[in-house]
Amino acid sequence: MSTTPRTASAEPRHRLGRHSALTAIERWLIERLLAAKHSPPIRVLAWSGQEFGARRDQAVATLLIRDRRSLWSMVLSPELGFGEAYSRGGIEVEGSLVELLEAVYRAVGADRGIEHKLAGLRARLRHANSLGGSKANIHHHYDLGNEFYSWWLDERMLYTCAYFPTPEVSLEQAQLAKMDLVARKLQLQPGERVVEAGCGWGALAMHLAEHYGAHVRAFNISSEQIRWARQMARRRGLDERVEFVEDDYRNMSGTYDVFVSVGMLEHVGRDHYPDLGSVVNRVLTPQGRGLVHTIGRVQPRPLNPWIEKHIFPGAYPPTLREMMDLFEPFDLPVLDVENLRAHYALTLEHWLARYERSIDRVRQRYDENFVRAWRLYLSGSIASFRSGHLQLFQVLFGRHDYRETWTRQAFYRHPA
Amino acid sequence: MSTTPRTASAEPRHRLGRHSALTAIERWLIERLLAAKHSPPIRVLAWSGQEFGARRDQAVATLLIRDRRSLWSMVLSPELGFGEAYSRGGIEVEGSLVELLEAVYRAVGADRGIEHKLAGLRARLRHANSLGGSKANIHHHYDLGNEFYSWWLDERMLYTCAYFPTPEVSLEQAQLAKMDLVARKLQLQPGERVVEAGCGWGALAMHLAEHYGAHVRAFNISSEQIRWARQMARRRGLDERVEFVEDDYRNMSGTYDVFVSVGMLEHVGRDHYPDLGSVVNRVLTPQGRGLVHTIGRVQPRPLNPWIEKHIFPGAYPPTLREMMDLFEPFDLPVLDVENLRAHYALTLEHWLARYERSIDRVRQRYDENFVRAWRLYLSGSIASFRSGHLQLFQVLFGRHDYRETWTRQAFYRHPA
Repeated sequence: MSTTPRTASAEPRHRLGRHSALTAIERWLIERLLAAKHSPPIRVLAWSGQEFGARRDQAVATLLIRDRRSLWSMVLSPELGFGEAYSRGGIEVEGSLVELLEAVYRAVGADRGIEHKLAGLRARLRHANSLGGSKANIHHHYDLGNEFYSWWLDERMLYTCAYFPTPEVSLEQAQLAKMDLVARKLQLQPGERVVEAGCGWGALAMHLAEHYGAHVRAFNISSEQIRWARQMARRRGLDERVEFVEDDYRNMSGTYDVFVSVGMLEHVGRDHYPDLGSVVNRVLTPQGRGLVHTIGRVQPRPLNPWIEKHIFPGAYPPTLREMMDLFEPFDLPVLDVENLRAHYALTLEHWLARYERSIDRVRQRYDENFVRAWRLYLSGSIASFRSGHLQLFQVLFGRHDYRETWTRQAFYRHPA
Repeated sequence: MSTTPRTASAEPRHRLGRHSALTAIERWLIERLLAAKHSPPIRVLAWSGQEFGARRDQAVATLLIRDRRSLWSMVLSPELGFGEAYSRGGIEVEGSLVELLEAVYRAVGADRGIEHKLAGLRARLRHANSLGGSKANIHHHYDLGNEFYSWWLDERMLYTCAYFPTPEVSLEQAQLAKMDLVARKLQLQPGERVVEAGCGWGALAMHLAEHYGAHVRAFNISSEQIRWARQMARRRGLDERVEFVEDDYRNMSGTYDVFVSVGMLEHVGRDHYPDLGSVVNRVLTPQGRGLVHTIGRVQPRPLNPWIEKHIFPGAYPPTLREMMDLFEPFDLPVLDVENLRAHYALTLEHWLARYERSIDRVRQRYDENFVRAWRLYLSGSIASFRSGHLQLFQVLFGRHDYRETWTRQAFYRHPA
C-alpha cells in the first residue's frame, strides 16, 4: 500500500463534498485507519480528491469520505462512526457495499481490541434485557410496522435464516424448507404440544400446526407481530391449534413435548441464558426435546456498536460455549449442531435485493437516513456471514429419555 | 421399596458365599447403598440369603453380594468398590449385567457428589498427561497385546464408535461407514495431506489413503499399535501414502489440509486442550479443516474411578463446553456437531458379544480377574451410553477460508 496519497485528478468533482485540502493530520489518520484494518483491498477517496489504500484496479470498491465530520467520527469510533456517517450520506461507496465490507471484515480477522470490550460493557448496561428492558428493545426493531417488513421478507414473513436445499431455490421455498427441517429434526408428531419462544409473525407456529398436526403456544413481546399473527391464524383457520401469547418467555407455564426458538436468543442477552435454560427445563416433559436457532460467534465479542445502537438494542450473538449455559446446568444433552452461516448470507442477499426493489416505497415512508441505515445493516450482515464474523447455530437437544432419530438422514426425508 | 430384608429361603445356597447372618449395620448399609442410588429396580441378595431392593418379579436383575469384604468396599467407594469386587468374583449378577448397570445409571441421573470431585482431583494428580505420563497411560491400555483386541474388534481393528446406517448392518460395515462419513464430512480430495492424531491400529489412515487418495501422516504413542499398523500398510501396498509416526501429537510438524482425531481426545486431559488446539492451529493450512471424535459428557464429571484406575488411566470425557478450548481461542468455527451415543452403545454390544464368544481364548491368556474386569468395562460402557451418562461427539471445524459443503446431505452421498 502506498503511504503517500495520490491525487485522483480525473475524479468527477461533483461526487465529492467540500473541496478543501486534507491537513497533514487528516492524511495520517486515513492511513492509520487503513492500517488498523490490516490494509484491506479497498480504495479510499477523500473530499479533497486525494486517494489512499489500494489502487483502483486492485480495489474491490471505493470508499468516498465526503467531509471532515465523517472522517473524525470514524477515527473516534470506527464501527459506530462508519455506520452513522454512511447513514447520513457523509460516506458513499462506489462499487459493491457488500464486497467492500466483506474485504474489510476478512482483513480484520479475529482482531479484538479494547474498543470491543468497552462497547460490550456499555451495551450491557444500556440495554439490559430485564422484563421491561426487553419490551423496549424489541419494540425498537420489530414494531417498525409490519408493512415495512412485508416489502422485503418472504410472503410468510420469516425474519430468520432460511435453509436452501440448493442455492437456486426461491426464498419462499427456502423458508418452507427451513420450517420442515426444524420439524424433522424435532421428530414432531401429530397431537404433540409445542411451545415457541419468540415467534415473530407466527409462520413457524402455523406451519407446525398445519402440516405436522401440532398444538402450538407461541410467545412474543412485540405487539405488532402478535396482532398480525393472530389475524393470519384466524384467516388460515388455525386459531384452534395455535395460540399466540403476548408475553415474555420467562412467564411460560404448562408442559410441552417440544420447545422451539428460532431467532430469539440473540435478544435474550448472556446474563439471562440461565433464565431461559430453567424455563426450558421447567416446561419440557421427560421425553421432551427442543431446538434453538441463533446467530452466533466463534469468539465472544459484542455486536457491532452501530448495529447495537441503531438497529438491534440489547442484542448479543453468543458463542457455542456461551450457549451451553442453556443446556449443561439442566443436564440436557446436545444431540446436533448445524452451522448454517452460508445460508444466512444467501437469505440476506435475497432480502437486500427485495429491499432495493422496494426502495421507492421505503423512501415514501421513512427518511433517507433510515433508508441508508437499513441498506448498510443488510449489506454488513451479508459481509459478516460470508467472512465468518457471524455464524448461525441450530442446536438440537433432548432430555435423557428422548430417543433421537437413528441417523440424521431422517432430517432430509420428506414425510410420506 | 421394603425397608426390612426378606429372607429368600428358596435360594440355592451354593450361589452364596459365607453363610453367616448380616449384622444390623450391614443390613442398614445395603439399604443406604440402594437409597443413595435412588432405589433402582434391582434386587440385592446378600451372602446370608437375605434380600433387599426390588422384588424378583419387578427387578431387571439380581446382584449377589457374596462376602463382607465386597459390601464394605462398595460402602467405602461405590464405583471403585463395585468394580473391584465384581472383578475378583465377590459380586455376581444374575440376569443381564448391562441391564442392571443401566437401571442403576438411569436411577442415579445426573447426581454429582463430593466423591466425584475428589475422584477427579486424584485422577488428575495421579495420571497427569505430560509427555512421559501419556506414554505410560497409553501403554497400560493399548499395549495389552494386539491379539487380545483382534479377538473382539472388527477385522480392521477400529477401537472407536462405529456408524450404523441402519442398526442391522454388521460391525465391519459400520466401521467402514464411519470412516466414509468422516471422509465426506471433511470433503477429502485426492492428493490432500492429512494428519491424524491418535491413529490406533491405523485403519482410518489407510482407508483415507486407499479410497480417497490422501497422503496421511498418522501419530500414535502406542508401540504395539504402530508396529501392527506399519505391517498392515506394507501388506496393503500403502506405505508410500501412509506414514505412521511413533510420537506424541505435541510434536507434530509440517502443514496439512486436514486434521483428524478419532478417539484420542479422551486421553488428552482437560489441562492439555489448549496444547492440542495450538497444534491444530499450527499445522492447518488457510483452507484447512478438521474433525475431532470423542466420548463426552453433558456435565463435567470425572471418569468412573474404577475405569480410571484399572482400564483407562488418565482418561477424561469432555463436555462440549470444555471442547471449545480446542477451537475458540484459535478462532476456528465449529461447523457441525453430531452426537452418536446410540451408535456407540450398539458398537459396544457387538464388542461384548464377540468378547463373550472369545472368552475361552481370553481365559487361556489372562487370569479370571482380568476376564471379569473387561466384561464389566464393556457392559458398563453400554449402560453409560444407553442411559445418557456418556455421549459421543463428532465435531467438524474449519478455518475461516474453508468452504463447507452447502448442505449436510453431502455427508450421506457415496462418492461417484
